[in-house]
Amino acid sequence: MRLLEDKIRQDGKVKEGNVLKVDGFLNHQIDPMLMEELGREFYRLFADYNVNKILTIESSGIAIAIEAARFFKAPLVFAKKAKTKNIDGDVWSSEVMSFTHGKVNTVIVSKKYLGPEDRVLIIDDFLANGAALNGLIDICTQAGAEVVGCGIAIEKGFQPGGAELRNRGIRVESLAIVESMDASDGSITFRH
Amino acid sequence: MRLLEDKIRQDGKVKEGNVLKVDGFLNHQIDPMLMEELGREFYRLFADYNVNKILTIESSGIAIAIEAARFFKAPLVFAKKAKTKNIDGDVWSSEVMSFTHGKVNTVIVSKKYLGPEDRVLIIDDFLANGAALNGLIDICTQAGAEVVGCGIAIEKGFQPGGAELRNRGIRVESLAIVESMDASDGSITFRH
Repeated sequence: MRLLEDKIRQDGKVKEGNVLKVDGFLNHQIDPMLMEELGREFYRLFADYNVNKILTIESSGIAIAIEAARFFKAPLVFAKKAKTKNIDGDVWSSEVMSFTHGKVNTVIVSKKYLGPEDRVLIIDDFLANGAALNGLIDICTQAGAEVVGCGIAIEKGFQPGGAELRNRGIRVESLAIVESMDASDGSITFRH
Repeated sequence: MRLLEDKIRQDGKVKEGNVLKVDGFLNHQIDPMLMEELGREFYRLFADYNVNKILTIESSGIAIAIEAARFFKAPLVFAKKAKTKNIDGDVWSSEVMSFTHGKVNTVIVSKKYLGPEDRVLIIDDFLANGAALNGLIDICTQAGAEVVGCGIAIEKGFQPGGAELRNRGIRVESLAIVESMDASDGSITFRH
């Protein structure tokens, strides 16, 4: 998506260690007009799939996901990071490794809000190793819900998460796929 | 706001210990059409205040705040709960007591995204003791930003946060103010 690629080139910062900082418009300060366009594009891509639920994970996926939910006229459910190790029987749960923070989070979704009647579009801001998406897909599987696909703002195409998900037959639509980036000169190449 | 009051009466659950569960439409599963109407109402209330930034705190304020931000055509900044006790000099920070989880969180906002040029509308889903709002106001004060007001979805009018803020001269607009509620019969009375 040209609009997002242009924004990444303009305001994104490439840092050492394959870090792409987009906290000026995506995951700390957020551009609401851009979020609306991302939501509109996810709707265009998945409009024919009878999506009746949007699923994301707190926190930085929520702004994109609520915009998508608005276009689909479907509720958004966001998975929460559990505050305690004692998970009761009222929730679906999965373990998600956070590479950014070097720890494993248990993420939970109330059984009230995800079940076999749901056709789910999973939305997130980033796809790199796929840990968060795999956790959300695991939760959908436990719930008997059908994952119609994943809508991602920015995929790091040089990390394995996207390829692994597509190899499992899951439709993954990333609006910008970074093929490579270079912290020494700040350059970014997108896959088309 | 009648629409929100009706939704609370219909889908909210009153629990022992002054707990109002609205996780069916506000803070776990989220109704995007309702969020849009809340955003529109905050815009109506604060349209003449030259708001140029919306500020909230992760996670459950984000969905409302991005809708408000869209109407104001202003960026949203969400304060993050710090993952470490070591806060560097690039952020404004404040301590926020979470009564729900019984612990103190350090919340941070990058200095890049909040400064003296900002006229800030603070948005959150709930106001009870006012801990989160006071933390966000403290951060604005540190940044030299002007708080034009606070827009809240649901205020627990029988807890002191709202009155304390208004006594300090801060404009607080809560779209539904719960005057009292009763777990024994699930009844809720709103202040008008």
